Amino acid sequence: MSHVSAQTMANAIRALAMDAVQKAKSGHPGMPMGMADIAVALWSRHLRFNPQDPRWVGRDRFILSNGHGSMLQYALLHLTGYDLTIDDLKAFRQLGSKTPGHPEVDVTPGVETTTGPLGQGIANGVGMALAEKMLAKEFNREGFPVIDNHTYVFLGDGCLMEGISHEVCSLAGVWGLNKLVAIYDDNGISIDGDVRGWFRDDTRGRFEAYGWNVIGPVDGHDIDAMDRAIAEAKRSADKPTLIIAKTTIGKGAPNRQGTAKVHGEALGNDEIAATREAIGWPYAPFEIPAEVYAAWDHKEEGAKIEGEWNAMFAEYEKAYPELAAELKRRLAGDLPEGWSDVVMDALCAAEEAQETMATRKASQKALNALAPALPELLGGSADLTGSNLTNWSGVKSLNSGEFDARHISYGVREFGMSAVMNGIALYGGFIPYAATFLTFSDYSRNALRMSALMKQRVINVFTHDSIGLGEDGPTHQSVEHVPSLRLIPEMDVWRPADTVETIVAWASAIERRDGPSSLIFTRQNVPFLDRDEVDADAMAKGGYVAAEAPAGAGEADVILLATGSEVGLAMKARAELAALNVQARVVSMPCTSIFDRQDAEWRASVLTPGTPILAIEASKTDLWWKYMSGKGDVLGVDRFGESAPADVLWQRFGFTVENVVAKATALLK
Amino acid sequence: MSHVSAQTMANAIRALAMDAVQKAKSGHPGMPMGMADIAVALWSRHLRFNPQDPRWVGRDRFILSNGHGSMLQYALLHLTGYDLTIDDLKAFRQLGSKTPGHPEVDVTPGVETTTGPLGQGIANGVGMALAEKMLAKEFNREGFPVIDNHTYVFLGDGCLMEGISHEVCSLAGVWGLNKLVAIYDDNGISIDGDVRGWFRDDTRGRFEAYGWNVIGPVDGHDIDAMDRAIAEAKRSADKPTLIIAKTTIGKGAPNRQGTAKVHGEALGNDEIAATREAIGWPYAPFEIPAEVYAAWDHKEEGAKIEGEWNAMFAEYEKAYPELAAELKRRLAGDLPEGWSDVVMDALCAAEEAQETMATRKASQKALNALAPALPELLGGSADLTGSNLTNWSGVKSLNSGEFDARHISYGVREFGMSAVMNGIALYGGFIPYAATFLTFSDYSRNALRMSALMKQRVINVFTHDSIGLGEDGPTHQSVEHVPSLRLIPEMDVWRPADTVETIVAWASAIERRDGPSSLIFTRQNVPFLDRDEVDADAMAKGGYVAAEAPAGAGEADVILLATGSEVGLAMKARAELAALNVQARVVSMPCTSIFDRQDAEWRASVLTPGTPILAIEASKTDLWWKYMSGKGDVLGVDRFGESAPADVLWQRFGFTVENVVAKATALLK
Repeated sequence: MSHVSAQTMANAIRALAMDAVQKAKSGHPGMPMGMADIAVALWSRHLRFNPQDPRWVGRDRFILSNGHGSMLQYALLHLTGYDLTIDDLKAFRQLGSKTPGHPEVDVTPGVETTTGPLGQGIANGVGMALAEKMLAKEFNREGFPVIDNHTYVFLGDGCLMEGISHEVCSLAGVWGLNKLVAIYDDNGISIDGDVRGWFRDDTRGRFEAYGWNVIGPVDGHDIDAMDRAIAEAKRSADKPTLIIAKTTIGKGAPNRQGTAKVHGEALGNDEIAATREAIGWPYAPFEIPAEVYAAWDHKEEGAKIEGEWNAMFAEYEKAYPELAAELKRRLAGDLPEGWSDVVMDALCAAEEAQETMATRKASQKALNALAPALPELLGGSADLTGSNLTNWSGVKSLNSGEFDARHISYGVREFGMSAVMNGIALYGGFIPYAATFLTFSDYSRNALRMSALMKQRVINVFTHDSIGLGEDGPTHQSVEHVPSLRLIPEMDVWRPADTVETIVAWASAIERRDGPSSLIFTRQNVPFLDRDEVDADAMAKGGYVAAEAPAGAGEADVILLATGSEVGLAMKARAELAALNVQARVVSMPCTSIFDRQDAEWRASVLTPGTPILAIEASKTDLWWKYMSGKGDVLGVDRFGESAPADVLWQRFGFTVENVVAKATALLK
Repeated sequence: MSHVSAQTMANAIRALAMDAVQKAKSGHPGMPMGMADIAVALWSRHLRFNPQDPRWVGRDRFILSNGHGSMLQYALLHLTGYDLTIDDLKAFRQLGSKTPGHPEVDVTPGVETTTGPLGQGIANGVGMALAEKMLAKEFNREGFPVIDNHTYVFLGDGCLMEGISHEVCSLAGVWGLNKLVAIYDDNGISIDGDVRGWFRDDTRGRFEAYGWNVIGPVDGHDIDAMDRAIAEAKRSADKPTLIIAKTTIGKGAPNRQGTAKVHGEALGNDEIAATREAIGWPYAPFEIPAEVYAAWDHKEEGAKIEGEWNAMFAEYEKAYPELAAELKRRLAGDLPEGWSDVVMDALCAAEEAQETMATRKASQKALNALAPALPELLGGSADLTGSNLTNWSGVKSLNSGEFDARHISYGVREFGMSAVMNGIALYGGFIPYAATFLTFSDYSRNALRMSALMKQRVINVFTHDSIGLGEDGPTHQSVEHVPSLRLIPEMDVWRPADTVETIVAWASAIERRDGPSSLIFTRQNVPFLDRDEVDADAMAKGGYVAAEAPAGAGEADVILLATGSEVGLAMKARAELAALNVQARVVSMPCTSIFDRQDAEWRASVLTPGTPILAIEASKTDLWWKYMSGKGDVLGVDRFGESAPADVLWQRFGFTVENVVAKATALLK
C-alpha cells in the first residue's frame, strides 16, 4: 500500500467529478461527491476486477443504479486503470465520447449496464446475481468455482421510491441471492428537496420484509466502517444484503453539500475553489498526483487475480473439457452446433401437421421443439404461465428452489421481469425470454426500451394480442401495443400468422445477437395458411408474398397486407375477391422492422409500387400508411375494445370477409 | 335485521358468481367465492352508500383492485339494489352488457373505477382518499362534514406484487390517509400456483415500514371478525389501514377451493352442483330467495343516510352559500365564470411579449396566469418540480403536511403518480396534472391508458421532449414517445411550438371533459413564431397554417408540417426556400388527434390534397405518412439519441435549415 490516505483517494473522485461537470457545464456532482468514500471502500478493498480485461468472466459486477452519478464511475474506471484517459474525462457529455451523461454499456469499458432510468439498475443487478447462481450451479465443479462473483449495486432514494425496486428486491429475497450487495446512498435529499416530504419508508423494515440481510445505518463517510459492512455483507449465507449508508450529498462542497442544488448542476468556479480548500486538494482541474494514481492503480492486482482464475480454468478445461467448451460457447453467445437442423426439423413438422391452433400454443410447440437443443434458453412468465404457455414439456421451474431451472415464475411483476431479463442477458450464458399479456407490456415498457438501447438478446413473449381475446374486455385488449412496440428503435416485433411463422419468429429472435425481439401471439385459434409455398427464408425477411394473385404476380389489382390472426382473413377474402374477378395478392408481414431492412428489390417484389394496398391488422391503423405508394386503406381498430366473445367482436369491429372485400374493391374505383 | 344469516348472504354471492361465470363460460369465480364473507362484513355493516343514487357525494368509495373478481362487485350491486338486474348478471361478459369482464366505470352503476390491470385500483384508491382529505379541508366547516367518506379497497396478491403498490402505499403512509382501508385477500394462490414460490414478503412488516396501521391476519371467512377489523380500521386516527384477511380462494367449491384452477375458469356443472350441496344453496341458477334479497336490500338505509346528508347540506348551503355553490361547481366539473377571459388575457399577454423561451417555461407562465383563477387545479411532479416547472408562484405544497395544498411532490414514482391522478379525477372536485420527463412516461404508460379508457380529465405534463435536452443522453431523450402516446385512443397529445400555443394547449386540456391530455414541452428555448396571425381558435383545431406560402394560399409548392420545437426551424426554412423561389407553407400541428377530428374542409384547407408535404418532428417518423396524399418525406429521428450539447445534436441529426431546404426541394423534382 502507498502512503496516500483513503480520504485522499476519495477526494480524487470528488475533484474529478466536480471538474468534469464544471467543464461540461452539465451533470450531477452531488452523488459522486457523496458516495466517494463508499467507492474507496468497495473498489480498493473488495471489488474483484482487472482493468486490463473488462470482460473477464470472473469479475465482480458493479452497477450504478443511480446512474446520474456517472462521473463517480468514470473517475473510478480512470483511476484504477481502465482504458479511459483523462482526456476522456475532459470530454464528459460530449458527442462521441466514452463518457456520456449516463453510463452506457459498450460505450465505456467497465460499465456493465446502461443506467439512468431509476430502479432499473438494481433490477439488472438482481438479474446478474441470478444468472451467476444459475451458471455456477450448472458449470462449477468441486474445486473449480469458475463462476463465482459478487454483484454490487449503488442506489439512491430515487431507486428505492420506484416500484420496480419493490418487485425485484422481493424476488431477490425469494431467490436468496446472497452474493448481491446493494449499497443505499441514504442522503435524505432528492431533487425536490428533503425526502421526508414524500419518502418516509422505514427502509430497513421494508427490506427485512423481503427477507434481506440489512446492515446499518453506517456512516457512509467512514471508509473503514464501510469496509467492515461490505465484508459482513459478503459473509451472508442465504440472503441478499442492503447496506444503508448515511451520507451527505455533495460532501466536500462547503456551501452546497446537503442540498438539492448540488444534485444536478455544476458547482461553479467559486464553490469549486471553496471545495478544493475544504478538502485539501490543491491540484489543478484534472490533475491527479502520481502517488494518488499509484494508490488507485488496480492493474497489477487485477492481472494477478485474473491470472489465478485463468490457471484454475486451464485445470478445469483439462478435467472437464466438454463442460469448459460448453461454458465458452454459452458465454460467447454462440448457438449450439446443429441448431439450424433443429429449426428445420421443427419447420418441416409444422408444415406437415398443418395445424389450426392459437399462436401462443404454436409458440409452446416451438419451444418443445427448440428448447431441448438450447440449454441457454431461460423462460418465464409474470404469473401467467398457463396462459402464455411459456413452459415446455419437462422444464424445471425455479420455484423448486433449485438453480438448475429453466423457467421462472416471476410473479405479477412485469417491469421487474423485463429488467431482470436485461441483467441476465448482460451477464451472459443465457437467452432469457418471458411473457405477459400484450396489454401489460405497458408495465415493462421502459425496460423493453432499455433492452433495445443496450442491444441485448432478450425475447419478450406477449400473448392475448387483440380484441380476439374476447371477454376480458378493453383493459386486457391491446389496440395500440403492436404499433407502439414497433416504434421502439432496435426492437423487432414479430406477429406470426400460424405455426410455421411462429417457428420462424422464435428462430429469428434466438439467432439475433444485436437486439431484443417481441413475439406477439394470439389467444385464439388461427388457421394454417394455405400458402403458395412454405419458404422460411422469405418469412425471415419480415414480409413476403403468402399467396400471389391467382392470375399471377403481374396481375395483382390489390395487395392485402396483413399480420398475425388477420392473414387468415385476408386469405379468405382473396378467394372471395377472385370470384369477383378481382386479383388480390396476400402479403404476410410478421415483422415490419426486418422487412424495412431488406433491399429495395425485395420490398418492391412484395409491395409492388403503385399497387393499391389494403392493410389489415387488429390494431391502431396509423403505422401502415408508410407502405402506401398508390391508393390505400387500413382495416384496423382505432378505439378501445369491448367485453364480449371473440367472434362477436370480430363482427362488430368489421373483421369479416365481406368488409375486407368491400374495402378492397373500393380501392379499385 | 332479517332472519337470513350472514353466511347465507355470502352464499348468495358465491352462487351468483359461479353461475354467471358458468353461463358466460368465461370469468373468475375464485376471488368472489373467497371474498364473499368479507364483502358481507363490509357491505352490509359498514359501507355507506345509496343504491338509488350511485353518484351521491357522501358515499364511501369501494374499489375492486383485484378486478378480475368482477362478479363479486356485480353481485353486491345487484343484491343491494342498484340498477343492475338479474338479467344484467345473466349477460355477464356479453357485448353491450352492464356487466363486462372487468369492472368499468360509467358502464355499471356503482363502479367507481375501471380495474383489471393489477395494482392500479389501490393507486386510484389512494388518489380518492387524498382528494377526500383535500376537498374536506377546503369545504368542511364546523358541524358540516359535507365531504366525509371512507375509501375501501379490495386487493390480492397480484396487486401487492406489482411495483405500483409500493409507490402509492408509501405515499399513503406519508400523507396519513387514515380513511383509506385496504383489505388484502391473502389466499396464498396466484395463477402460477402457491405464491410461496415467488412471493414471500412479510406484508405486515412491509406496510408497517410505510407507516400503515396493519390489522390481522384475520380469518376472512369469519364475518364477525372481519366486521370488528373494519370497525377498528375506521378508528385509525392518522394512518391508512391494511387488513390482512386469510381466505381460501374459491371457498365453497369442494374440489377446487384453494387451488389456482378455481381462479380463472368456470367451475363446470359437476363442481357447481357439488358446491350447491356443500354450501347448502338449493336454488336454481340466478334464483335468489326473496328473504335473501330483503336481507341484502340497502335502498331504505341508503335513502336514509343520503337524506340526512341532504338535510345537512341544505343547512350548509344556507350558512355558506358561496362555499356550497363553489363545491357544486367543482363537483360538476364546470369551469369558473370568467374562465375564457382569463385564457384570453393570457393569450394577449403572450402575443404582446413575443418571448423566446423553453415551452416548459412557457407552461409555467401559463400556470401562473391560469391557476389563480382555477382552484381545482392540482399540480405535481415526480421529483422534478424545478425541471418540469409545474409549480406556480406562491402555490402551497402538500409536503407542508397541509391538505389545502395545490402542488404535490410525488417522489420518483411516475406510475403511482399517474394512477393517483386517475383516482383524484374520479373522485371529483379537482383537475389533476403532474409531470415527469417525457421518456419516463414509459413508467406510467398503463395508467395513461387507463385515464383514456375511463375518459378522465387528467393532464400529463411531459418535459425534456427530444434530443434537444442534450447531455443527459439516450436514456433521457425521447424518440418514440410522442408518436407512441398519440397511439393511445382518446389521448390528446399536445406539442406546442411557442408561448401562445402552450396556453392554447393548457386551455384545451383544462376545458376537455371527456378525456386526458398530454402536454409535451421542450427543455430548450424556442422562438416566438412569426405567424401570419395569432388565431387561438385555429390553433385549438390541432393543426393550422402558421405561415402561408409567401405568394399566397394557392401558390404553395410544398407544405412544411411541423410540431413543437421544429416549427421554428420550418419557419426559417420557409424564408430560405422563398429566396430560392420555392413557395412553402408552414403548418403547425400541435395536436394531431384534434386535427383529425376536424371536418374535411378544415383539414383540406391546412393540408391541401396533392401538395407535397415535408413533415418535421424530432421523433420516430412513422405516423406522419398518413397525412401524405401526394409526394412526401419526413425529417425525424429513427434511432436512439446521444449524449452531447443540444446544438451539436441538432446538427448531427439533420435538423438544420440546409437539410430542410434540401429535403423540401427534393420533393419538387
